[in-house]
Amino acid sequence: MKLKKSLAMAPAAIFAPILAHAQEAPVAEGAFASVEALGALNVEMVFIFNTLLFLLGGILVFWMAAGFTMLEAGFVRSKNVTIQLSKNVGLFAIAAVLYYLIGFNLMYPGEGWLVDGWLGTPGPAVLEAVGITAAGAVDVGYASVGSDFFFQLMFCATTASIVSGTLAERIRLNAFFVFVVVLTALVYPVQASWTWGGGFLDAAGFSDFAGSTIVHSVGGWAALVGALVLGPRIGKYGADGKVNPIPGSNLALATLGMFILWMGWFGFNGASQLAMGTISDVADVSRIFANTNAAAAAGALAALILTQMLFGKADLTLMLNGALGGLVAITAEPLTPGLGMATLIGAIGGGIVVFAVPLLDRLRIDDVVGAVPVHLFAGIWGTLAVVLTNDGASIGAQLYGIVVIGGFVVITTGITWLAIKAVMGLRVAPEAEVSGLDKTELGMDAYPEFTRG
Amino acid sequence: MKLKKSLAMAPAAIFAPILAHAQEAPVAEGAFASVEALGALNVEMVFIFNTLLFLLGGILVFWMAAGFTMLEAGFVRSKNVTIQLSKNVGLFAIAAVLYYLIGFNLMYPGEGWLVDGWLGTPGPAVLEAVGITAAGAVDVGYASVGSDFFFQLMFCATTASIVSGTLAERIRLNAFFVFVVVLTALVYPVQASWTWGGGFLDAAGFSDFAGSTIVHSVGGWAALVGALVLGPRIGKYGADGKVNPIPGSNLALATLGMFILWMGWFGFNGASQLAMGTISDVADVSRIFANTNAAAAAGALAALILTQMLFGKADLTLMLNGALGGLVAITAEPLTPGLGMATLIGAIGGGIVVFAVPLLDRLRIDDVVGAVPVHLFAGIWGTLAVVLTNDGASIGAQLYGIVVIGGFVVITTGITWLAIKAVMGLRVAPEAEVSGLDKTELGMDAYPEFTRG
Amino acid sequence: MKLKKSLAMAPAAIFAPILAHAQEAPVAEGAFASVEALGALNVEMVFIFNTLLFLLGGILVFWMAAGFTMLEAGFVRSKNVTIQLSKNVGLFAIAAVLYYLIGFNLMYPGEGWLVDGWLGTPGPAVLEAVGITAAGAVDVGYASVGSDFFFQLMFCATTASIVSGTLAERIRLNAFFVFVVVLTALVYPVQASWTWGGGFLDAAGFSDFAGSTIVHSVGGWAALVGALVLGPRIGKYGADGKVNPIPGSNLALATLGMFILWMGWFGFNGASQLAMGTISDVADVSRIFANTNAAAAAGALAALILTQMLFGKADLTLMLNGALGGLVAITAEPLTPGLGMATLIGAIGGGIVVFAVPLLDRLRIDDVVGAVPVHLFAGIWGTLAVVLTNDGASIGAQLYGIVVIGGFVVITTGITWLAIKAVMGLRVAPEAEVSGLDKTELGMDAYPEFTRG
Repeated sequence: MKLKKSLAMAPAAIFAPILAHAQEAPVAEGAFASVEALGALNVEMVFIFNTLLFLLGGILVFWMAAGFTMLEAGFVRSKNVTIQLSKNVGLFAIAAVLYYLIGFNLMYPGEGWLVDGWLGTPGPAVLEAVGITAAGAVDVGYASVGSDFFFQLMFCATTASIVSGTLAERIRLNAFFVFVVVLTALVYPVQASWTWGGGFLDAAGFSDFAGSTIVHSVGGWAALVGALVLGPRIGKYGADGKVNPIPGSNLALATLGMFILWMGWFGFNGASQLAMGTISDVADVSRIFANTNAAAAAGALAALILTQMLFGKADLTLMLNGALGGLVAITAEPLTPGLGMATLIGAIGGGIVVFAVPLLDRLRIDDVVGAVPVHLFAGIWGTLAVVLTNDGASIGAQLYGIVVIGGFVVITTGITWLAIKAVMGLRVAPEAEVSGLDKTELGMDAYPEFTRG
Repeated sequence: MKLKKSLAMAPAAIFAPILAHAQEAPVAEGAFASVEALGALNVEMVFIFNTLLFLLGGILVFWMAAGFTMLEAGFVRSKNVTIQLSKNVGLFAIAAVLYYLIGFNLMYPGEGWLVDGWLGTPGPAVLEAVGITAAGAVDVGYASVGSDFFFQLMFCATTASIVSGTLAERIRLNAFFVFVVVLTALVYPVQASWTWGGGFLDAAGFSDFAGSTIVHSVGGWAALVGALVLGPRIGKYGADGKVNPIPGSNLALATLGMFILWMGWFGFNGASQLAMGTISDVADVSRIFANTNAAAAAGALAALILTQMLFGKADLTLMLNGALGGLVAITAEPLTPGLGMATLIGAIGGGIVVFAVPLLDRLRIDDVVGAVPVHLFAGIWGTLAVVLTNDGASIGAQLYGIVVIGGFVVITTGITWLAIKAVMGLRVAPEAEVSGLDKTELGMDAYPEFTRG
Repeated sequence: MKLKKSLAMAPAAIFAPILAHAQEAPVAEGAFASVEALGALNVEMVFIFNTLLFLLGGILVFWMAAGFTMLEAGFVRSKNVTIQLSKNVGLFAIAAVLYYLIGFNLMYPGEGWLVDGWLGTPGPAVLEAVGITAAGAVDVGYASVGSDFFFQLMFCATTASIVSGTLAERIRLNAFFVFVVVLTALVYPVQASWTWGGGFLDAAGFSDFAGSTIVHSVGGWAALVGALVLGPRIGKYGADGKVNPIPGSNLALATLGMFILWMGWFGFNGASQLAMGTISDVADVSRIFANTNAAAAAGALAALILTQMLFGKADLTLMLNGALGGLVAITAEPLTPGLGMATLIGAIGGGIVVFAVPLLDRLRIDDVVGAVPVHLFAGIWGTLAVVLTNDGASIGAQLYGIVVIGGFVVITTGITWLAIKAVMGLRVAPEAEVSGLDKTELGMDAYPEFTRG
C-alpha cells in the first residue's frame, strides 16, 4: 500500500529525542570502542553512497551523449544524418580516451600543479587497486577514484557534444575530430582545473556548481568561434539579407534527444553535489533534482508562450531548446534557489533562447541546432544568476570567471580552428555540401529507402 | 568473478546467531550511549535509502513522459507528429509548474484539509532548507521533501500523458493545454488526496498501491470523456458501419516508447513502496520489480498468442499495448502476488486490451493509441485483482473506489471538456484535420523530407 | 558548490586513526551488545546495497533489450522492420516467462543437481515472502531473491536478443519464437549453470565475469548455426561471388540502439560484481564502470581509424559494431585490467569486428546485423584476454570453457534449428522475402507513409 506522506512510517517525533541525546550526551566510558567502530561503519557507508552517486550520475551524463546525438540527427537534413551520428559516436570515443590519457590529471592536479593554480600536470589516470579497503582508498572520506573518473569524464565529453551540432552539415569529419582532441585533452581540462581543480578561479570565489560556464559556455564558445571560422551553410542566408529556414529532417528524434538530455541532467546537476552519504547531502541532491526539473519545465513553458505571442504559433524546436536553455541556466546553481526561483531562472533561460536564435540569424551566424543560444547565452545567464540565491557568490567573481574562461576558450579554440583550416582544411567542397556529406564523406545514407520531397 | 548464488559471500548461518543475540540480548549499561548513536545512524541510513529510492523512481517515471511521447508520435500519421510531440512536451511542463504551485499541497494536506478527507488546501510546495540535519528534516523517518515532491510530480504528469494519445489528430493545441491545467492542478490531486493523502477513500479501505485507478484509470476516464465530446477523426468510421484502420506512421518509434514505459514502470511501481532502508522494504521492492516485469511480459505474450488465434497474424501494435495493459493491471498490487499470479494478472490485462480495442471501434469511439483499453479497462481489472492476493483489500472497497473516482473524473472532466468546447473550441476545422495539424496549427512538419505514399 | 577532488569533504587523514583503532583495539566489555547490534546493522546495509545493485543492474540490462531492438530495426530494410520489432518484443516476453517457469532454478540448482555439476533441476522460481526480516531472508549475506532473479532473467533475455538480428529478413516469426523457447528455457540456463551455478566449469577454473562466453558467445553460436541452416537472404551473394551490400533503413535508430546497449552494459558488467555493500565492492564496481567505458570507446575508435585506413572512409555501422565488440571483449574480465589494458582489450575487440564482418561475407554467411563478429568472435577474444590480467585464470581453463560451451551450443541449437525446419519450416517463401515480411507475415508496415526509393 502506498503510504501517505502525512502518515510516514517512522514519525520524526519518535527519533527526535534519541537524536538529541545521541548528539549531546556524554559517551559512556565502556562504549568507546564501539563508537569508534560506529565511526568506521559510517565512513564506509558514506563512501559507498558517494561512490554510488558518481556511478549513477556518470551513467546519466553518459546518456546525454545519446541525447545530443538524437537532437542533432533530428535537426539536420537527412542527407547529413550519418555524418552527424558518426561525429557524435567518434567524439565520445575520443573524449574518453584522451580524458584518460591526459585530461583527468590535468584537471585535478591535487598538489601537482606545473604552474600553481593555472596549469596542472597531464598524465594517465590510474584507478585504485582491486579490492581496496578503507585504509587503501585514496580518499576514504570522498569516493572511489574509479567512480570520480567515470563521472568527470562524462562532463568532458559533454563539452565536445555541444560543439558538434552548431557546425553540422558543412565541417569535414576528421577536421572536427582533430578539434575534439584539442578540446577534450587540453582546453576543457585546463580551464576546468581553475575552478573545480582548486585553481585560481576557485580562489577568486568563482562559483559554478555543475558547469553553466565550465561545461556549457565552454562548449558554446568553441562552437561560436567554429561557426565564425567555418561560415554559414550554402543557401542559409540570401544576398538580400533574407534568412532561409532549413528545417530538420526528424523532429521526433530531436524530441527524444531533448527528453534524454533532460533525464541525464538529473545526474549532471544532482551528482555534482558530490556526496549523498548524509541526510544533509541527500536532501540537497533532492533539492537539486526538483529545481532542475522546475527550470527545464519553465524553460519549455516560456518558449511555448513566447513563440505563440511573438510568432502566432507554438514552435516545437524552440520549446525543445527552451527546455535545454532552462536546464543550462539552473546548472550553475541548482541547490540554493527555492522552487519558485528555479522556475524563474529556467523561464528566463528559455526566453533567452527564443530571442537569441533569430538574433544569431540576423548576425548571419549559422548555428544549425541552436547550441550557442542554449549553452552559451543561457549559460552566462545562469552563471550570473548564482548571486540571486547563493550568498557566497559575488557578481564580480562571476563576471571574472565568465570573462577569463570565455577569453581563454575563444583564443585557444580560435587558434585551433584556424590551424586546422590552414593545415588540413575545415570545410567540405561546395558540391559535396549541396549533395550532402553522407554521400561524399562517408558513402552511406542514414535513410537510404526514404525518398526526399 | 561472478559469484554463484549458491556460494554467496556471507552465508546467513554466520550472521544468524549475531542477529538473534542483538535482537534479544539485554543491552549492557555502558553501551547505552552508543546504541543510541547507532539508532541515529540507522535513521540516517534509512532516510538516505528512502530518498534515493524516490530520486531513482522519479527519474524513471519522468522517463515515461518520453515513452508516451514516442509511443504516440509513432501511432499517429506523419502529418500530425509535430503537434503530438508539442503536446507531450507542453503537458509535462504545465504539469510540473502546476503541481508545484497547487497540486502537491492539495494532494497531501496533512492536517490542513479544507473539507476533511475530501478537499485539501492548494498552495505552493516548499522544499526543506539547504543542508538540513536529522533534526531539521520535516520527517526524518521518511525521506526528504524534495525527493517526495519530485517523485509525486511525475505521477501527476503521467496522468496527463495518458490523455494526449486518445485525442490525437483532431484536438486544438491550446484547448488541450487548458484541459491539462485543470487535470493536473485540480482533478488529479483532489482525487489522489482521497487515498494517498489520507482522505476518505483511504479510510474506507480502498487499496491502490501505485495507481491502476488513481493514475491510469483517471487518465483513461479523462481520455474517454474527451473522445466522446470530441468525436472520431474524419474518415475513421464509414457511414456503412465500416471501421477504417488508420495505421501509425512509425512503429519503430512506438516500440521504443513501449520499452521506455516498461523501463520507467520499475520506478513507478517499485518506488511506490516508498522505502528501501530495511531488509524488509528492499526485498519488497525486489518482489515488485520481478512482478512488474512478469506482468508486462505476460501481457505482451497474451497479445501475441491471442492475435494469432483471433486474426491469424501477430499484431505488433496490440503486443505493445498488451505489455502496457499487463503493466497497468499489476500496478494496483505489485507486491503481494507471487510470480505466477503476477503473470496471470498481466496476461489478463493484455487480453483485455486485445478484446477492448475492436470493441471501442464498434462503439465508434476513436481512441488513436488505445489508451482507454490500456489505462482504463486494464486499470479497473488491476484494481479489482488486488483482492486476489491482498488480504487487507475487499471487493466492496475496491468497487467503491473505482466508482467514486470514476464518477468524479467523468463529471469534472466532462464539464471541463464541454466548457473548453463552448468557450474556445475544441476541434480544428475539418480542412485542417485533413491536411494535418502540423501544417495548420504549427506550420512545421516533423519529417519534411520524407514524401508520403 | 562543486567540491574539488583535492579538497574532499572528509579527508582520509581524519578517519585513518579511528579506523586503525576500530580494527585493532580490544573491545571494551560493556560495549559488547552494541557491537553485535552494529554487526546487525552492517549486515542489513550490505543486503540493501547488494539488492539495490541488482535492481539497478537489472533495469539497465532490461534496457539493452530496447537497444537490440533499435539496433536491429535500424539495420534491416524498411519492409522488414515490423517483424524485427515484433521478434524483439516477443523474445523478451518468452524469455521472461520461461526463465521464471524453468530457467532460474535450472541455472542455480544449489544443492539440487539432477546430474551433479552438469544438469540442474527445472522448476518455477519462488520469491521470498512479503516483508521478510534478516532471519527470513534466503541468504542475508547476499541479496534478496527477487532482485537476483530479476537481474539474472535479463541475461537470459539478452542471449536471445543476440540471435534475432543475424537471422533477420527471412526467418518465420513463430519458427524464431520456438527457437527462443528452447534457447531460454534449456540451452542458456544449462550451460550457465556449469559456471555461474557452481557446476563443473566453475570447478575447472573457467572464468567469465559477466558473460563474454556464457551470454555473448552463446548467442553468437546460436546465431551462426541458425544462419548456416537458414542460408543467406535472396540477392545478398551474387552467383559470381560478388557481395551485394544491403544497407539498413535507419542508421539513426541503429545508433540509438548502440548507445542504449553501451548504457545498459554498465549494469551488465557492473552489477555482475554482485555486491556493493563494502568499500572494496563498490570501488570494484567503479573500476568495472570505468573499464567498460574505456573498452567501448576504444572499440569505436579502433573501427573509426581502421575503416579509414582500410576503406578510405569512416564506416558508421562498423563504428557502432566496433563499440559493441569492445564491450563484449571486456565483459569476461572488466575488473582486473587497468584503464590502459581495458582500452587495449576493447580496441582489439573493435578491430576484430572490422576484419570479421567482410570475412563472414566471403564465407557467404549472411549475418544481417553483424552479431556473430560482435558477440561470438569478440567474445572469444575477451574470454581469452582474461588471462592477461587475472592471475586466477589459466589459458587452458579458458579454452576448455570456450570449447565445451561452444560445442554444447552448436550441437543443441543445431538440432533445434533442424528440427524446427523439418517440423514447421524455418524460412518464408521467396516471394514473401522479396516483398518483405512485414506485408506477408504480419500485414503491417512499420513506416506505411514513407515511400521507398
